[in-house]
Amino acid sequence: MTKAFTIWLTGIPGAGKTTIARELVEVLGPEIGSLAHLDGDDIRRDALYTLGFGREDRDTNIRVLAYVARTLNLHGTPAVVAAISPYAETRLEARKMIDQFVEVHVECPVEVCIERDPKGLYKRALAGEIPNLTGLNDPYEAPLDPEIRVATATESASDSALQIIEALRGLGHI
Amino acid sequence: MTKAFTIWLTGIPGAGKTTIARELVEVLGPEIGSLAHLDGDDIRRDALYTLGFGREDRDTNIRVLAYVARTLNLHGTPAVVAAISPYAETRLEARKMIDQFVEVHVECPVEVCIERDPKGLYKRALAGEIPNLTGLNDPYEAPLDPEIRVATATESASDSALQIIEALRGLGHI
Repeated sequence: MTKAFTIWLTGIPGAGKTTIARELVEVLGPEIGSLAHLDGDDIRRDALYTLGFGREDRDTNIRVLAYVARTLNLHGTPAVVAAISPYAETRLEARKMIDQFVEVHVECPVEVCIERDPKGLYKRALAGEIPNLTGLNDPYEAPLDPEIRVATATESASDSALQIIEALRGLGHI
Repeated sequence: MTKAFTIWLTGIPGAGKTTIARELVEVLGPEIGSLAHLDGDDIRRDALYTLGFGREDRDTNIRVLAYVARTLNLHGTPAVVAAISPYAETRLEARKMIDQFVEVHVECPVEVCIERDPKGLYKRALAGEIPNLTGLNDPYEAPLDPEIRVATATESASDSALQIIEALRGLGHI
C-alpha cells in the first residue's frame, strides 16, 4: 500500500471546496478504504468556535487542520482538507507538517462565487455585515505552484473530483 | 472488531499522564493494531502555539484534542489523550463528542508531583514565574466518576498501564 496522503483544497468561499471534498469521499473513499474529510468550517463549529477571522486565528485554524490530517495519515488514513487557507506561508507550514501533501487550487472567479453564494456570505459582506470575507475584502494568496488546479466555473464538482483522482494516480499516491 | 475508543488521561502536571500514554502505545498498540497518542503539550507546540493558559484557551486545547480523537476513532484508530484537562465541564464536552470515551484519573498528590517536577514547572511556579500552574495556583477539578482511576504515587507507569488495559477488557472495549 502507498503511504497515506492529504489532499489540500484551497480557494475562496463558494469555489466548491466542500462539494469536491464530499465527491472525493464518495468516489475515492471506497477505492482506498477510507478517506477522512476535514472541513475548515466544521472544525470551527465543533472545536475552534472561540476563534475569529483575523490572520492569527485563521492561521491557527489551518495549523489544527494540518495537525489532524497529519495524525490521520500517520495512522494510515488519507485525508481531504477543504479550507480557504488564504495565506501562502501558512499553507507552506501545513505542507511541511504533512509527509504526502497534495495542494489543489480550487479556482473560481469571485464574480461566479458571488452569484453562487451558497452560504449567503458575499451578500452579507457586500451589505457591510462581514468585514473580512476572503476574496472580497480580505486577501487570498493564490498558490503559485499547486500540484493540481481545477476550474469550477467551467466544470462540475464531479468532474473536478475525477481530475483530482487522475492526478493522484499520476503522482503515484494511489 | 469492537469500535475504536478514546482513553482520556486527566490529572495535574507531573502525575504521569504522558508516561502512561507512551506505555499504552507500546504495550496495547501492537495488540489492537494501532493506538494514537495525542498530547496536550505536543498539540500546543505544533498547532496551538498562540494559545495561552487562561480558561478559554485551555478549553480550546481540550476541544481540539477531542476533535482529533473523535476523527481518528471514526476512521478506526483508537486514541489515548494525555492532557491536564482541569475543568469537569470541558471534559464532559469531550465525552459528548466521542462515542466510546474512557476517562482515567491519573491521581497523584501535588507534593509528589512537586518532587518529581519532570519539566521544572512547579519550581518555576513556586518561584513566581508561572502564574497559573494547574494543581498549584490554578484549579484542577478532579473527576467524580471516571471509568478508571490509577494512583501513580504508589505504582509504576507500567503498572498503571496494565490496570487500564485490564479495565478496558472489563468494559468490553478490547
